[in-house]
Amino acid sequence: MPDTGDTRYDRTVFYLSDGTGITAETFGHSLLSQFEDLRLRTVRLPFIDSTEKAHEAVERIERQGRVDRHRPIVFSTLVDSAINDVVRQANCRFLDLFATFVEPLEVEFGVRSSHRMGRSHAAADSEAYRNRIAAINFSLAHDDGQQHSELHQADVILVGVSRCGKTPTSLYLAMQHGIKAANYPLIPEDFDRGRLPDELYRHKAKLFGLSIAPERLAEVRQERRPGSRYAALDNCRYEVAEAESMMRREGIHWLSTTTKSIEEIATTVLQQLAER
Amino acid sequence: MPDTGDTRYDRTVFYLSDGTGITAETFGHSLLSQFEDLRLRTVRLPFIDSTEKAHEAVERIERQGRVDRHRPIVFSTLVDSAINDVVRQANCRFLDLFATFVEPLEVEFGVRSSHRMGRSHAAADSEAYRNRIAAINFSLAHDDGQQHSELHQADVILVGVSRCGKTPTSLYLAMQHGIKAANYPLIPEDFDRGRLPDELYRHKAKLFGLSIAPERLAEVRQERRPGSRYAALDNCRYEVAEAESMMRREGIHWLSTTTKSIEEIATTVLQQLAER
Repeated sequence: MPDTGDTRYDRTVFYLSDGTGITAETFGHSLLSQFEDLRLRTVRLPFIDSTEKAHEAVERIERQGRVDRHRPIVFSTLVDSAINDVVRQANCRFLDLFATFVEPLEVEFGVRSSHRMGRSHAAADSEAYRNRIAAINFSLAHDDGQQHSELHQADVILVGVSRCGKTPTSLYLAMQHGIKAANYPLIPEDFDRGRLPDELYRHKAKLFGLSIAPERLAEVRQERRPGSRYAALDNCRYEVAEAESMMRREGIHWLSTTTKSIEEIATTVLQQLAER
Repeated sequence: MPDTGDTRYDRTVFYLSDGTGITAETFGHSLLSQFEDLRLRTVRLPFIDSTEKAHEAVERIERQGRVDRHRPIVFSTLVDSAINDVVRQANCRFLDLFATFVEPLEVEFGVRSSHRMGRSHAAADSEAYRNRIAAINFSLAHDDGQQHSELHQADVILVGVSRCGKTPTSLYLAMQHGIKAANYPLIPEDFDRGRLPDELYRHKAKLFGLSIAPERLAEVRQERRPGSRYAALDNCRYEVAEAESMMRREGIHWLSTTTKSIEEIATTVLQQLAER
């Protein structure tokens, strides 16, 4: 988060929040991705929960505006109106993410909103939050087929060849959605036997497959074990072909991760879970 | 995602997107947390990238409205105006997250936005995305002091007693921010010697401490190893007191995780990194 007169940037965007500012940043980032030709510096100012901190934020924003010679853009999810009123006075383009939509929702629901600060994430002592932490621990313990004894507790078991994206997807599902996601590699021994690992037959309804283009797989494996048989393109072609034909034979739904982000893979897995 | 006449819910909220819908859901969830007395069912409809899928979404929304006997709320981040125009016709309260803010930004920047779909997350082949995956692999390999050889590559090294929140925070920093976050436990042997583990002195500027209330720590450890010395309250009190005095002595910044979510802890760590 540089706060200097760096000329590589055209404008500065601030994300202001009484909480972490993650919601403002996620949303702002999505909008700003529509302006790909602009060089935008982004600065998150979290935990603005007093008018004193609001005044400091105003100073910071205006200082940056003088450096940039353009007024900054400010995305705010500030809930408290006294704090918001301070920031609104800054010389900036102020976009109020909160009020813009809370007001129509109040009309639609016919009730007033609570206007309480820092409510956007589950409190650390809520059940939903504890479930997320439990899911992270579960996914770590059940990464890469390490453990079978508790597979019956899994919400989903991702299968696929080594390095096709199972681990990051499992962790994302656990962390963001509290999904207990185990993962299990399909390895050459399984292809020789022509069968899934025995443990998996018991939980077949929970399996979801990931695959990947052999060329991309070879690249990823080269980074990990350069020059190895494991990373050789012909070996990657063999493993991927075998894994895909096994998944087809066993009737396992699967998708290719080659050009997909973790978020896209996880969203497809969640859709599949919802349909079950 | 139940799609039934479940009477536990007052209203249904749909998140519509041409991509994963994660931005819409994060934002909508934050707004709706202000209406805590309402029982809201939420349904994410991702990958709405054709007018055909838009028509299906309209049917789904209107069917739900008839079941609920209240029109649904629809948060949309749809970028394509032809697709958006279809959904807008549904009998619902339509909140257009995209157009509401893209238009003022176009005026402010003096340029037109690209109106391209599915741009909100880094493409799976971008450098930022590869950095995130590399950071996840790094954080997994450097979890719980497993590996020292590459600690010089770490952006931050979290330290603290076992089960104070180091692992989920490291993974969150890696996954969401591409931060290479290692973590290293402070254990009774360190307290006996009265020194940090030797490996850490070399990287002292990268250390950030986590602590936790002993009562909460005992609860968390009881779940893991019920009835053990490890989980006993007096042992937790001892370890936490020793760890905190060690961090104070060594001048390590630290925070208490007791009532904080991963997102809040990670935000504070990021602020600290930005100040360095």
